[in-house]
Amino acid sequence: MKVLITGIDGYSGWPLALHLLSRGHSVVGLDNFVTRRRVREVGSWSATPIPAFPRRLAAVKELLGKEIEFHRGDMTDYPFVRQVLAEERPDAIVHLAEQRSAPYSMIDVDHAVATQVENITGTLHLVYAMRECSPETHLVKMGTMGEYGTPNVDIPEGFFDVEFRGRKDRLPFPRQASSWYHWSKVFDSGDVMFATKVWKLRATDVMQGVIYGIRTPEITDDRLLTRFDFDETWGTALNRFIAQAVLGLPITPYGKGEQRRGFIALEDSMQSLRLAVENPPSAGEYRVFNQFDQAYSVNELAQLVHRVAGELGLSPTIDHPPDPRVEAEQHYYLPLHDNLLALGYQRTRALEDVVREIFRDLLRFRRRLEARRYVVMPTVQWRSADSRPALSARIPPAQKPPPPQSSEPASEEPPA
Amino acid sequence: MKVLITGIDGYSGWPLALHLLSRGHSVVGLDNFVTRRRVREVGSWSATPIPAFPRRLAAVKELLGKEIEFHRGDMTDYPFVRQVLAEERPDAIVHLAEQRSAPYSMIDVDHAVATQVENITGTLHLVYAMRECSPETHLVKMGTMGEYGTPNVDIPEGFFDVEFRGRKDRLPFPRQASSWYHWSKVFDSGDVMFATKVWKLRATDVMQGVIYGIRTPEITDDRLLTRFDFDETWGTALNRFIAQAVLGLPITPYGKGEQRRGFIALEDSMQSLRLAVENPPSAGEYRVFNQFDQAYSVNELAQLVHRVAGELGLSPTIDHPPDPRVEAEQHYYLPLHDNLLALGYQRTRALEDVVREIFRDLLRFRRRLEARRYVVMPTVQWRSADSRPALSARIPPAQKPPPPQSSEPASEEPPA
Repeated sequence: MKVLITGIDGYSGWPLALHLLSRGHSVVGLDNFVTRRRVREVGSWSATPIPAFPRRLAAVKELLGKEIEFHRGDMTDYPFVRQVLAEERPDAIVHLAEQRSAPYSMIDVDHAVATQVENITGTLHLVYAMRECSPETHLVKMGTMGEYGTPNVDIPEGFFDVEFRGRKDRLPFPRQASSWYHWSKVFDSGDVMFATKVWKLRATDVMQGVIYGIRTPEITDDRLLTRFDFDETWGTALNRFIAQAVLGLPITPYGKGEQRRGFIALEDSMQSLRLAVENPPSAGEYRVFNQFDQAYSVNELAQLVHRVAGELGLSPTIDHPPDPRVEAEQHYYLPLHDNLLALGYQRTRALEDVVREIFRDLLRFRRRLEARRYVVMPTVQWRSADSRPALSARIPPAQKPPPPQSSEPASEEPPA
Repeated sequence: MKVLITGIDGYSGWPLALHLLSRGHSVVGLDNFVTRRRVREVGSWSATPIPAFPRRLAAVKELLGKEIEFHRGDMTDYPFVRQVLAEERPDAIVHLAEQRSAPYSMIDVDHAVATQVENITGTLHLVYAMRECSPETHLVKMGTMGEYGTPNVDIPEGFFDVEFRGRKDRLPFPRQASSWYHWSKVFDSGDVMFATKVWKLRATDVMQGVIYGIRTPEITDDRLLTRFDFDETWGTALNRFIAQAVLGLPITPYGKGEQRRGFIALEDSMQSLRLAVENPPSAGEYRVFNQFDQAYSVNELAQLVHRVAGELGLSPTIDHPPDPRVEAEQHYYLPLHDNLLALGYQRTRALEDVVREIFRDLLRFRRRLEARRYVVMPTVQWRSADSRPALSARIPPAQKPPPPQSSEPASEEPPA
């Protein structure tokens, strides 16, 4: 099949391209390289060195003997999106080109607006371009498990049967997101659900759990590595804990640390997205997959990182700073995830093994962590209207982010 | 109390200002006059002549002896919104400054994006400015009954008690909107619910039914009239039916005409908003009011208009063109609306009386209807990605809308 990956330069987009190529699919990519710029904006970089994008494509050609067609541009530019769809008419689109950080969306009003506006504009442009130029294409859109929040009932896959005041219906499961970013994903879900209904498009809405890991079997060379963000804004809790352990800093689960979330290994997330792509829904169908493998509490992650760190001769302490987020620190959490199992999903990686693998990679790239050690501790306060002062106080003057450069994709390779 | 009305120049905003002034409140207004420009964009105007805004203010001063503080500007301009809040620190804000037309949002991709981006940006700017400058202010935000769609169960006011797989919770009622506009209101609801939670703001989210009528007791002079839109894009079904009857055109309920919706008289909507303002929620409280008086089917409206037209010597036929919208033409519909009753809401106007009153006004302004008779029949197709060709084909060359003018508020008075 021919698959268009929007956001192909990102954390998931790049290994997805490699995975789909390895399974005989052809891949078309689209990106505007904004994640590279925004990670610099908060004074950080990827722990793994990420080559400039043309060098990524050259490595794919050299190592895998495959070509990836690439369109550089922005999802907020409708003529661009329309032209890509008209030219490529892919069998499926995996739409990853969104602002993906909750803390980034909470920095201040401008980051809140940018997150919601960019995400819903990109998705609207995509469904309109599909409708106009490629109505048979299957849209695999990324939502997040965070759309559901932490209700006191089981979380179904998108829809549930309700009885209310003596009558019954099957309704979308209510969303209770907890950041402007998470709400932007709720909004995209509403728009895509409506587009499938009004225009008979076909869509899979993937409620993505937290992904962990840097490697997939297709990453056989450092030139093929995907990014590993460890700063407060772009890194997940697990990524930050491992980086903290490597740097000799305390591990910092927020608050009581009993917040539970669904997790999945990078490799198994790629498996899931491929299963979605290879098994499209019918025209007019909007289906929802809860894409995670297992739920863990933040404390369980911290303790696992602490244990593996100990095996490696590291001895981090565990601190519990106050939770900067506004979320339940203790709650029920039982999301269902049967739809992917029905398509043949099988877990291939266990969390503990992947954590060991991440430690091995981060110890290799320790100097890159050291050079940005000041970004790993939390400063963005959910309850504050403006976290910029804390953010910029943290960044040493020499490291103040340059103004966004859009002319050339930035290399993230370490200085020679 | 001091009340800021965003969108004070609009259909609801203007009579709300008059009503609040008559009850001894002080009123501050904000507007960018975009509705005047957008009604011109589709080749239409208000059936009632609307004076330029400075003349509206002068009439209020002359006839009521009251001053309205006015801020001209755009809700998408954060420094402007912030400055208004910092300067005024109102007790309440009634936020009406949104793109309010479902058909307008469905014209094409640009109108879809503009609707969602403007509406969520304005609301985000408002909650951030409240948080920064006026955190005690009570936000009365307009949603729409259309957020809920037409589920096969009763529709509660915002939240409902759910039992699912043996566990219970109180959750937001699922939203199933049916236009990009309606989804934008769903998105605003999510953002405001989150803002009240994260920053302890106070908000009333008004799920507004369809409003009918031109007059309130405070409109004692033609210079105080509010607008009456009758074109396909900006007019409600009831408005268009009455305009069709006056113009000798067939009345056109879509499809089977059994779509039921909640309705409320303009005067009673003003009463409801005042009750919300005068009875604020506590800090951190997000409450939802379903604000309608009675549900009617489109056929019931058409038959009522037909009957009243007959009394006036008019004899329109009733046609049933195919439904251009994507909606259930036959469905269950039982929304609850107890919260406003608990605050003392009482119906003051019956639909039939208001329809007679509208006929009387429209017959006075019949020449303004005649001059725009080509805008009253439907052309926007929900299922089409682009309704612009139909729209522009309909507008005679001499009436093509001028490019938007933002320098001066446009007068809608008839040419001398």
